[in-house]
Amino acid sequence: MGNKAKLRAVVEGNAFSALIQFLILASAVAFALESGAPGPELHPHWHYFLILDWVFFVLFAAEYILRLYIAPKKRAFIFSFYGIIDLLAILPSLFLVPGFRVLRTLRFLRVFRIFKATRFILAVDRLTEALSEIKRELLALVILSLMLVYLAACGIYYFEREAQPEAFGSIPDSMWWAVVTLTTIGYGDVYPSTAGGKFFTALVALVGVGLIAIPSGLLASVLTEARVERRKVEEGETERED
Amino acid sequence: MGNKAKLRAVVEGNAFSALIQFLILASAVAFALESGAPGPELHPHWHYFLILDWVFFVLFAAEYILRLYIAPKKRAFIFSFYGIIDLLAILPSLFLVPGFRVLRTLRFLRVFRIFKATRFILAVDRLTEALSEIKRELLALVILSLMLVYLAACGIYYFEREAQPEAFGSIPDSMWWAVVTLTTIGYGDVYPSTAGGKFFTALVALVGVGLIAIPSGLLASVLTEARVERRKVEEGETERED
Amino acid sequence: MGNKAKLRAVVEGNAFSALIQFLILASAVAFALESGAPGPELHPHWHYFLILDWVFFVLFAAEYILRLYIAPKKRAFIFSFYGIIDLLAILPSLFLVPGFRVLRTLRFLRVFRIFKATRFILAVDRLTEALSEIKRELLALVILSLMLVYLAACGIYYFEREAQPEAFGSIPDSMWWAVVTLTTIGYGDVYPSTAGGKFFTALVALVGVGLIAIPSGLLASVLTEARVERRKVEEGETERED
Amino acid sequence: MGNKAKLRAVVEGNAFSALIQFLILASAVAFALESGAPGPELHPHWHYFLILDWVFFVLFAAEYILRLYIAPKKRAFIFSFYGIIDLLAILPSLFLVPGFRVLRTLRFLRVFRIFKATRFILAVDRLTEALSEIKRELLALVILSLMLVYLAACGIYYFEREAQPEAFGSIPDSMWWAVVTLTTIGYGDVYPSTAGGKFFTALVALVGVGLIAIPSGLLASVLTEARVERRKVEEGETERED
Repeated sequence: MGNKAKLRAVVEGNAFSALIQFLILASAVAFALESGAPGPELHPHWHYFLILDWVFFVLFAAEYILRLYIAPKKRAFIFSFYGIIDLLAILPSLFLVPGFRVLRTLRFLRVFRIFKATRFILAVDRLTEALSEIKRELLALVILSLMLVYLAACGIYYFEREAQPEAFGSIPDSMWWAVVTLTTIGYGDVYPSTAGGKFFTALVALVGVGLIAIPSGLLASVLTEARVERRKVEEGETERED
Repeated sequence: MGNKAKLRAVVEGNAFSALIQFLILASAVAFALESGAPGPELHPHWHYFLILDWVFFVLFAAEYILRLYIAPKKRAFIFSFYGIIDLLAILPSLFLVPGFRVLRTLRFLRVFRIFKATRFILAVDRLTEALSEIKRELLALVILSLMLVYLAACGIYYFEREAQPEAFGSIPDSMWWAVVTLTTIGYGDVYPSTAGGKFFTALVALVGVGLIAIPSGLLASVLTEARVERRKVEEGETERED
Repeated sequence: MGNKAKLRAVVEGNAFSALIQFLILASAVAFALESGAPGPELHPHWHYFLILDWVFFVLFAAEYILRLYIAPKKRAFIFSFYGIIDLLAILPSLFLVPGFRVLRTLRFLRVFRIFKATRFILAVDRLTEALSEIKRELLALVILSLMLVYLAACGIYYFEREAQPEAFGSIPDSMWWAVVTLTTIGYGDVYPSTAGGKFFTALVALVGVGLIAIPSGLLASVLTEARVERRKVEEGETERED
Repeated sequence: MGNKAKLRAVVEGNAFSALIQFLILASAVAFALESGAPGPELHPHWHYFLILDWVFFVLFAAEYILRLYIAPKKRAFIFSFYGIIDLLAILPSLFLVPGFRVLRTLRFLRVFRIFKATRFILAVDRLTEALSEIKRELLALVILSLMLVYLAACGIYYFEREAQPEAFGSIPDSMWWAVVTLTTIGYGDVYPSTAGGKFFTALVALVGVGLIAIPSGLLASVLTEARVERRKVEEGETERED
């Protein structure tokens, strides 16, 4: 086994995976804490964040180079989903050098480092397979939802525009109410005040509750089918062995 | 192939579909933006909206005439679901001519142009088939929900009418609370304040959460059955081919 | 066919059903409107409500007597579910005579007339069969939910009792928050303000969302099994016929 | 049958179970009521709570000793799940003696007595079996949810930090909004005010509604498979009997 093969075994091993996952988590926590800090001029320990940024930059860059090195086809890796994600995870830190101003705006992109973690979650491929099988239906659902948001906004605008011109003064404004109502979040910052608007809301809410039921029903059906099929295949193999 | 057949191929093609869908979207956006505009007297660029209205009117009218022309049975098309939808999409704009006052009230109907888009969404017929198979159960659910809203309103009226006469002064008024609670929206404009009212709300919420579970369970069962059947048919065909 | 048999055919027919359903609906609407009326002394048309009450009383009493008359076993009908419901639907109106004071308190029971309508809804017996098959699991869920409400209330009481003594001053008081949060209603009248309380809420909300998923999953599984079984039976019958 | 065997039959019997369940419920109620009481110095009937605490302590201790006595393997019982739960249910009351100050802090642990009740709920093992089969997927879902909360918090922080620095001043602060929104609770204490923030919320809400659909779909699929398998086994047994 050559050096490259040994290295590949290490990189694809559990210990390396755990290390990278820990780095992602640490980077996410650092990023979150940095967001609340009062800024480089006022913060007494700001340089700690800077040092951490450098550490994450170096480590993620090393990982990227390593993965590129062990990849059988370099170009394929670079343009693969995870090749791009891994590159995006180091690019924003490249700007650590020039100065604080530029850093501040680009720094924000480091949040996408968290997508590196999906590499380990997507191992649960039963779920992603099921989701990909109902892609078309889910897309139709998203379009239907947008249509419903639009129609709900038009309706409530008709009923409430005169009673509450600040919240329902136009259809785009009313869309905020439509989203908050159809998803049953209901912050309470905007709600109908007229009898007509309340009646219309009841109707919209009924439809909304029904709409929310659809994705779970869809998912249940593909997952059940997949399970029954897998079980059948397993039983078939057992019978052949008999 | 005659001219009509050629035209029909174009109208039923993907490019024409995409064009109409774009027109519907553009019309919806224009309608939404127009709603927030301060009105013809105050808006400096109001004539742009007018021009757009004319453009949509002409294009949708042209589409309607085209579809009518290529339809083998004219009368059947006119009274079909999409024949009516397409007509409703142009009718409100017919009143572009006479004057602004009349236009304002009828303009609102242009919102239903968005239903034209369902022509392309309903292609996902697995979902609509499943929904049509549980029509009877869904109707029963809607009636049950209305009964529950009524009973919840009566109950909260009993507990809260004295403590909060503005919000719970009558059963019809209390229904607003019942809808907002059973759908778990919970705007926060009305909520019980007495111990009895809170206890009753807990009960209603428990039942409400159970009720919301029913449509998704129903849908899951029909979709699963349909999937298993389809799979069986496919396997049967494969076996016969062997 | 005797008179009784003819009468039974009428009572069990669709026309009679529709009539009773209409009466129930009308009675519910009258009850709701009466609730908002300012009371017998102030209302100019109060006698209309009184007349309506009398009409409903006479008609529902007539229905009860009719059903009792055509029942093969009188005693069995009286103590059956619908025998009791039908009796309860007329009893509160029996007190129309003595005076307004007494009437006011008992009047409220007329709301249960709406349960008479379940006779026609429960025709959708697929759903009720499925629900009765998961009775045991649903009971376990209700107990689990109550335990969760209790534990959530204890937890938030621990975190918030000092910061918000009015809302979280005791565990029973905190239960109101627990119910409103676990059902995801979220009125917004009470919510945590401390960091610990917010963190605890996040945990409770995660568990709550999972709990809500259980009834729909349970229902989906029994409904699917019932569907697949029914389909199998139908196919078996077709094969035997061949 | 020896004394120990007789005792075991009693302890595992329904009457003893019902007694313990009643004790757990009574203890939970007493704990809840005590929480709202003004404290030992001010409460006129505080000694009742003290007496109750002693009663529960003695009874649960007696139960623990009994269960330990009848257990075939003492050590295995002590370190079993319910052995530890039962011990934890009496430990906090052991500190009834020394004084009120110490009692107050440890008293809180008595809330976990309620876990003793799970012994009787977990009898519904179909549900727990199903949940344990999708353990891996549920874990992935929890991780995905946490990622989503993090990304949502980063996004809203970007849009709202300047408009509402108190609510969205840092990513950890913004997480509170993310949890309340993704679970569709929507208390209404924090919500976006800028157009960008509202648009981002619509996106997050759409994803959140989809995420909530996953656990119920997953559960439905395992429960359905389990049901279909059980039915098959039952049918197989019937056939063999023929």
